[in-house]
Amino acid sequence: MGDLRVAVLLSGGGTTLANLLNVRDRGGLMADIDLVVSSRASARGLAIAEDAGIKTEVVEATKYTISAREGEVIRDWPAMSRDLDRILLGGKYDLICMAGFLCRYLFSPELKGRIINIHPSLIPMFCGQGMYGHRVHEAVVEAGVKVTGCTVHLADLEYDTGPIILQRCCPVYSDDDPDDVAARVFREECAAYPAAINLIAQGHVHLTTDRRTYVDGDRYIERFSNDVD
Amino acid sequence: MGDLRVAVLLSGGGTTLANLLNVRDRGGLMADIDLVVSSRASARGLAIAEDAGIKTEVVEATKYTISAREGEVIRDWPAMSRDLDRILLGGKYDLICMAGFLCRYLFSPELKGRIINIHPSLIPMFCGQGMYGHRVHEAVVEAGVKVTGCTVHLADLEYDTGPIILQRCCPVYSDDDPDDVAARVFREECAAYPAAINLIAQGHVHLTTDRRTYVDGDRYIERFSNDVD
Repeated sequence: MGDLRVAVLLSGGGTTLANLLNVRDRGGLMADIDLVVSSRASARGLAIAEDAGIKTEVVEATKYTISAREGEVIRDWPAMSRDLDRILLGGKYDLICMAGFLCRYLFSPELKGRIINIHPSLIPMFCGQGMYGHRVHEAVVEAGVKVTGCTVHLADLEYDTGPIILQRCCPVYSDDDPDDVAARVFREECAAYPAAINLIAQGHVHLTTDRRTYVDGDRYIERFSNDVD
Repeated sequence: MGDLRVAVLLSGGGTTLANLLNVRDRGGLMADIDLVVSSRASARGLAIAEDAGIKTEVVEATKYTISAREGEVIRDWPAMSRDLDRILLGGKYDLICMAGFLCRYLFSPELKGRIINIHPSLIPMFCGQGMYGHRVHEAVVEAGVKVTGCTVHLADLEYDTGPIILQRCCPVYSDDDPDDVAARVFREECAAYPAAINLIAQGHVHLTTDRRTYVDGDRYIERFSNDVD
């Protein structure tokens, strides 16, 4: 089996993309990143992709706006999803990695099982619509939990509900603010996403009939941070 | 500061009590267990207490039954709670440890901050009314999460919602059944409950105004299993 052909979807700064490229450059990723699609033309993630010589596409979310009043924006996700489908099905990618992609992607059934996402909490805690980015870590601190982490999961048509592939944990300390938690979780994400991609590349991730995954050899997968900070 | 005077509340087999006694016997617990209260006269936990020479009381939950029809039992928790209060306030215990206590204890304000509970999941996941014992681990397997753990928290008047003191994690493996998860989590509980009691005994646990705890030195508290099975 060769390396996976991967497309990355993003909407913002591209820190997750930058991490995947770093791991790839060190020889640690069983995947080539062949395309980056952004939902914002101004996303810094596009510049990272271009600097790395990766083909980019923009599917500008604002162009699909149906209405925007009183701060609530409604977009035509089905129309945007059809345009994403066209790009992604055309490229014959083995795997599509969401990396801070903030749009609802109602993808074609043909892509089922080939789209993964990373979420900066231990799903099913601190996830779902509106719970992304810094808000997650604010909620973690507010709730007073003593551990948090990140989750790589197969995407379905909802937010953060697809079958889980890998989770990694880290501590939450009593004097943490949300930025501290964000930084610590991001270190876990940097380990978890490449590890999950490599498990998929090796054929170790199997979707069971009941919406769970079976991961071969998962007794040997590190799930806990050894970081001290 | 001397050892804490502790009362343990239980309803069943007393495995958590047995663990606390084991740790105490090895010199690892900064607490004396002076009383065990059971909500069932037939609880095996009472026999464990008696074998260890600990005073026991029974506050039989079935005596507080208001109605029982179509499988739904309604009990007079306020009345039962008053009887528990009488016992626990009379004994001047420093700490009350719930250990598989399945009744709703609407304790006196005088006991606030002195009652702790252990729950076999990472709160706020897989907790709340009706989510106890084996049901927790069934839900964990059903959800397909890859990590779980246990939580020691200060009790409030709801189920599993009080401020968290300590959480410990362990893996969930793809081939686990709920019994496997229960056994692995129980090993974490055996570490977490004594650790939390000792933190309290040393004055390291502070309730912050906003329903969270501040735990001194929590960078040095182990939160992850090193077990391999």
